[in-house]
Amino acid sequence: MGKQIIHTPEGVRDIYGEEYDKKSLLEDKLHHCLKSYGYHDIQTPTFEFFDVFSSRIGTIPSKELYKFFDKEGNTLVLRPDFTPSIARAAAKYFMEEELPLRLCYKGNTYTNHISYQGLLKETTQIGAELMGDPSPEGDGELISLVIACMKAAGIEEFQVSIGQVEFFKGICEEAGMDEEDEQNIREKISNKNYFATEEILEQLKIKSHIKEVILQITDFFGSIEKMKEAKALVHNARSKEAICRLEQLYEALLVYGVEKYVTFDLSMLSKYNYYTGVIFKAYTYGVGDAVMKGGRYDKLLTEFGKNAPAIGFTILVDTLLSAIDRQKISLPGFFEQKGILYPERMWKEAISMAKELRAKGERIELIKERKGKEKKDYISFAMRNQISEMYCMKEKEWWKTEE
Amino acid sequence: MGKQIIHTPEGVRDIYGEEYDKKSLLEDKLHHCLKSYGYHDIQTPTFEFFDVFSSRIGTIPSKELYKFFDKEGNTLVLRPDFTPSIARAAAKYFMEEELPLRLCYKGNTYTNHISYQGLLKETTQIGAELMGDPSPEGDGELISLVIACMKAAGIEEFQVSIGQVEFFKGICEEAGMDEEDEQNIREKISNKNYFATEEILEQLKIKSHIKEVILQITDFFGSIEKMKEAKALVHNARSKEAICRLEQLYEALLVYGVEKYVTFDLSMLSKYNYYTGVIFKAYTYGVGDAVMKGGRYDKLLTEFGKNAPAIGFTILVDTLLSAIDRQKISLPGFFEQKGILYPERMWKEAISMAKELRAKGERIELIKERKGKEKKDYISFAMRNQISEMYCMKEKEWWKTEE
Repeated sequence: MGKQIIHTPEGVRDIYGEEYDKKSLLEDKLHHCLKSYGYHDIQTPTFEFFDVFSSRIGTIPSKELYKFFDKEGNTLVLRPDFTPSIARAAAKYFMEEELPLRLCYKGNTYTNHISYQGLLKETTQIGAELMGDPSPEGDGELISLVIACMKAAGIEEFQVSIGQVEFFKGICEEAGMDEEDEQNIREKISNKNYFATEEILEQLKIKSHIKEVILQITDFFGSIEKMKEAKALVHNARSKEAICRLEQLYEALLVYGVEKYVTFDLSMLSKYNYYTGVIFKAYTYGVGDAVMKGGRYDKLLTEFGKNAPAIGFTILVDTLLSAIDRQKISLPGFFEQKGILYPERMWKEAISMAKELRAKGERIELIKERKGKEKKDYISFAMRNQISEMYCMKEKEWWKTEE
Repeated sequence: MGKQIIHTPEGVRDIYGEEYDKKSLLEDKLHHCLKSYGYHDIQTPTFEFFDVFSSRIGTIPSKELYKFFDKEGNTLVLRPDFTPSIARAAAKYFMEEELPLRLCYKGNTYTNHISYQGLLKETTQIGAELMGDPSPEGDGELISLVIACMKAAGIEEFQVSIGQVEFFKGICEEAGMDEEDEQNIREKISNKNYFATEEILEQLKIKSHIKEVILQITDFFGSIEKMKEAKALVHNARSKEAICRLEQLYEALLVYGVEKYVTFDLSMLSKYNYYTGVIFKAYTYGVGDAVMKGGRYDKLLTEFGKNAPAIGFTILVDTLLSAIDRQKISLPGFFEQKGILYPERMWKEAISMAKELRAKGERIELIKERKGKEKKDYISFAMRNQISEMYCMKEKEWWKTEE
């Protein structure tokens, strides 16, 4: 056996010690937050039939999926994203449900990245989906839940950017653009590549006032008043309605009392094709990427045979954890762990003492004395293992390990 | 999109509603139990290099592994079992640690079963590994932890069977059997196929008193006294020491006060080749299979370059959950969930009320009234969604849903 066998494949890793403790505490707090809004847990399989994540559904490109075969020759895929799985399950178990369904999930997702070095290929996601509710209150609930989750994670300074894909789609429709051109421009705007956007637009036969609106789109950013200005500049009903929807949403956010955390941004567009209305991303300092993201996907469930609008979001737990770390936030709620150090001859007393303390709810690790080890060795062992106090049976005293 | 897309691949499934609530409550209780013994969480990747689970390591046969390739052409495997992964990680991060390491884990495992219909291919496991401790107290700690976990799961009637693979190995060594014959007989004994065992033995040139001991092995079952009788019947040191070890273990179990839950069984042998000493399985009624299993594997870590004895066990959460269900055990600790039913015009009041109750730690689901729906529809919705009480804003009254 060579050296290689102790390593994990590229892009996946082990998590342990203090890092894991923090991660699981964070997960608990986020889960608790989703439950407080009445969301119901669901767990879907780690792998599904390829069709659930096919290009028609509109998740990531097929070449970035981990694919393998079952014994019948079907192509299976490690889930790259939860939303299509939850939509599938909702169609399977709640086909007849007419009232809104609230589902939440936690688990890992898998992306076989090609172009980026250093990105994790296995990441933890926690998220919520509200299905069967087409209303702006529904949008408001999800965004207020995102904000509640940010606070539950101990983050004070953050921003939720809200976009609305219908605004851009309305303009493209008005311009009579085909899907390819629309996709092309969307990509350029997403990458904040204005020159390229301008170049494409010049080659298209589009009315000049529409071109101007598209080139201006990155300026449609900021408060709800900015959105109203944008509404005045467009002439098609779809784009105007898109902004009305944002105004209704804003009203709901006022009721939740969370308006100060949001910014509108009409140039925000998503790589997932399934979004159909409001989309949003939560940012905080310390990490470049969004820590939570989501949006409305009113057509996705029909792909699985259920006619229901929906909106959802996902928390990128690993990214959020990096932000928490870099902001030096310490989440309250760490359990203390203690140790009992005993010489061989006292093993029975040590077990009895541990038994008693465990029955009281304490976390007790038993450590037998070893030849050649001294107090400092045990203390450093305790520190490596997050043991805050150790009872030395021979000396009949408690040693603090954080001295 | 056809009908197939709402289904999951064979052998994997969705879990939701009350079943999921029970499962996650059970997982919490088990995890809490492992933590009370001072075990430290570790999370390994869902897939690893093939070598970690190769036949040399001694987990399940290669053809039952889910295999795929990374972009560099390496074979990756969805983990079928946690122990080799934890051993690998221990070797990677704790190579220099001389004191015992306690690690615990929770996650799913994947087996591409061939011969059995209806078995789950994705199952949840929670387990603990004690590394670097060769002592019988270590064995005792793990078995007492198994018993604590059974109790934490609310199970009253259960049995932990303890075997010792060294006893059988000692006899085979004394008989001068080659590995193939040993493997062959082990399989027959495991399947309780006495005639086949006899048939194989007849063809081997083995002293008759050894043949007799092997044929008697299924009778070496019961109390520690039965083990002492078995010790008297064998003449090789390895088998005798194997029983001495069980006697020391029994002494530790007396200190933990858990001796009434254990039975010894020398015919218990495992399909995992990595076990080297004590092995054990916990059984309860309602399910045929063991709900927890484990054993000592003193050689496994050396495969990853770390010289350390180890013992561990895993809890088969799905099987345990079936047992709990069939025994009609209700785990204490269910959270109540409530609903607020509001007419459209009262949405602001509804959100404010929800906000207030959530701040008090309640779980609140908002339900907007729909045309054509009456009280009975909302009550039945609540019952489908484990909502125990619903506040009707229009009537200003709480509706109990379990009437």
